[in-house]
Amino acid sequence: MIPVRILGTASLRPGPAVTTAELCARVGRDVDEVTRKTGIHTRHFAPPGTKAADVAARALKGALDAAGLEARLLKRIFCVSSMGGDVTTPATANRVAAALGLSGSCDAMDLSNACMGFLSAFDLAARSVATGLGPVGIVSVELLSRTTTPEDPRPYLVLGDAAAAAVLGTGRPGEGVLGVALGNDGSLPTDVVLENPHATGRLERMRFLTPSKEMTRVALDALVRATREVLDGAKVALRDVEWVLTHQPNGRMLDAVLDAMGVEAGRSVRVVDSLGSVGSASLPTCLDVLWRTKRLKPKDRVLLVGVGAGVAHGAVLYQVGG
Amino acid sequence: MIPVRILGTASLRPGPAVTTAELCARVGRDVDEVTRKTGIHTRHFAPPGTKAADVAARALKGALDAAGLEARLLKRIFCVSSMGGDVTTPATANRVAAALGLSGSCDAMDLSNACMGFLSAFDLAARSVATGLGPVGIVSVELLSRTTTPEDPRPYLVLGDAAAAAVLGTGRPGEGVLGVALGNDGSLPTDVVLENPHATGRLERMRFLTPSKEMTRVALDALVRATREVLDGAKVALRDVEWVLTHQPNGRMLDAVLDAMGVEAGRSVRVVDSLGSVGSASLPTCLDVLWRTKRLKPKDRVLLVGVGAGVAHGAVLYQVGG
Repeated sequence: MIPVRILGTASLRPGPAVTTAELCARVGRDVDEVTRKTGIHTRHFAPPGTKAADVAARALKGALDAAGLEARLLKRIFCVSSMGGDVTTPATANRVAAALGLSGSCDAMDLSNACMGFLSAFDLAARSVATGLGPVGIVSVELLSRTTTPEDPRPYLVLGDAAAAAVLGTGRPGEGVLGVALGNDGSLPTDVVLENPHATGRLERMRFLTPSKEMTRVALDALVRATREVLDGAKVALRDVEWVLTHQPNGRMLDAVLDAMGVEAGRSVRVVDSLGSVGSASLPTCLDVLWRTKRLKPKDRVLLVGVGAGVAHGAVLYQVGG
Repeated sequence: MIPVRILGTASLRPGPAVTTAELCARVGRDVDEVTRKTGIHTRHFAPPGTKAADVAARALKGALDAAGLEARLLKRIFCVSSMGGDVTTPATANRVAAALGLSGSCDAMDLSNACMGFLSAFDLAARSVATGLGPVGIVSVELLSRTTTPEDPRPYLVLGDAAAAAVLGTGRPGEGVLGVALGNDGSLPTDVVLENPHATGRLERMRFLTPSKEMTRVALDALVRATREVLDGAKVALRDVEWVLTHQPNGRMLDAVLDAMGVEAGRSVRVVDSLGSVGSASLPTCLDVLWRTKRLKPKDRVLLVGVGAGVAHGAVLYQVGG
């Protein structure tokens, strides 16, 4: 076990809700069909001029408040994003730290691993804390509306903006990460791509390259494999896991995942209906909803499992402390 | 101490050398003056079409070969870049892993913290290894020539392309990281900036925003402070550190740093003259040159110290094993 404690969480929606009906009218698609296929009723688009660092700082401040912790006590900040935040250099994380009033009291860096970025950072934060460098703040910030256009409706109709954060600190006895199974398989067919304009020399958009049925199949396989691996490693049966949080690129995928795993809806948290597909911010938003709205008991186990472009996939099994 | 061992290193220059004379002729600047001010005689520009992932994979393969380790044994790969690699989503690290023939045997992610990215990843890799997840490969890849233009000579005349890698594994007794002092201060004036085109909606270039004298002063302050902090923390005097490797944005800065710290040139490694300013690849290139060309003895201490945009700064003190 990696001894670590989730000290606090927060999530936010950095702009007004935009309905699927509104977007469908804009691109000439049938709202009922799109809603049925995606399970998404609304998503949020940040207003023009919104800075990722400001949104991220608000989310991280929320998690610090929930933890009852002052920002100056943080030893490390991870800023996670699938679209690169505000700046490529320096790390957007510097601006998050500055917006929290910090001036050199911790380090700060940007991390990306598509929709798995938060779980990657969660693992790194846990290992940082366990080796003496904590507390650590993680914030996922996605302004994915900046990467879409109505001319390419498939990403446009599902992607949204969001931010969510968690603060990890020293674990109490019996509390922490029971198991981790993270992997990236770049040999699988490319599914979702946002090329780097600094490399290509032109502006780029998020593109979905494979049919959604094929994406769902690859994603389901990866999720089920990661779940099996982490549970086997920790010698825990799925029926003994009280809470199962999954990355939610769309509602159908969430249903398919819970169905494939035999997990009833009451053991999970559903955010995709109103939030849309929000990349690395999906899992920490679920974590925040779980932390704020459910009655967690000591020794409860929480499985966080996800899949993303890459193909990145994996799971973290966390045990709640006393 | 964080028990960890540097198993192998490598570095490469992904294209032909381009002389300062050639670039000065292109932009109408005096070659002697530029050479005197920057200490840079050549840098390397990767040919058009070069993929960051391929360059990174070659460097990481070199470090694996030096370690006598097969890629399939890696448990984690960090791909570090100040310009974001080939793709924003998925992480370029997926393609590095795939180019090494891997298909899901480890996780892989992109990390950025300007010129400090390698040291950030080094710290995270050490903590991963120390908590049971190793060996870990770190590769810094910078195709900074993609971010410059002759119309803005200041970055154009110093930035270059490079890649360098290290593989970390389990430490032997008395071997590992004696101390870490890493910090980011986003409240300092912005110095070097590469905005994110996904956020701004336009193509961007690397820009130097402060006079070089001011940049040197801030950088020197940060380097000296980080050095003092890591040495104080580890209770080691600088005279008892056999090797001092510093980030090298230009030759003058390197001279000033060694001078300010009272470190004679023979205890350091100089790469900037022929390599130019290569962002996060500077320190691992120095590390590779040290590992390959100097006679390291058991218990030798190596100080890696750097500063970068953000302002990111910090130091890692490593002790060589038997």
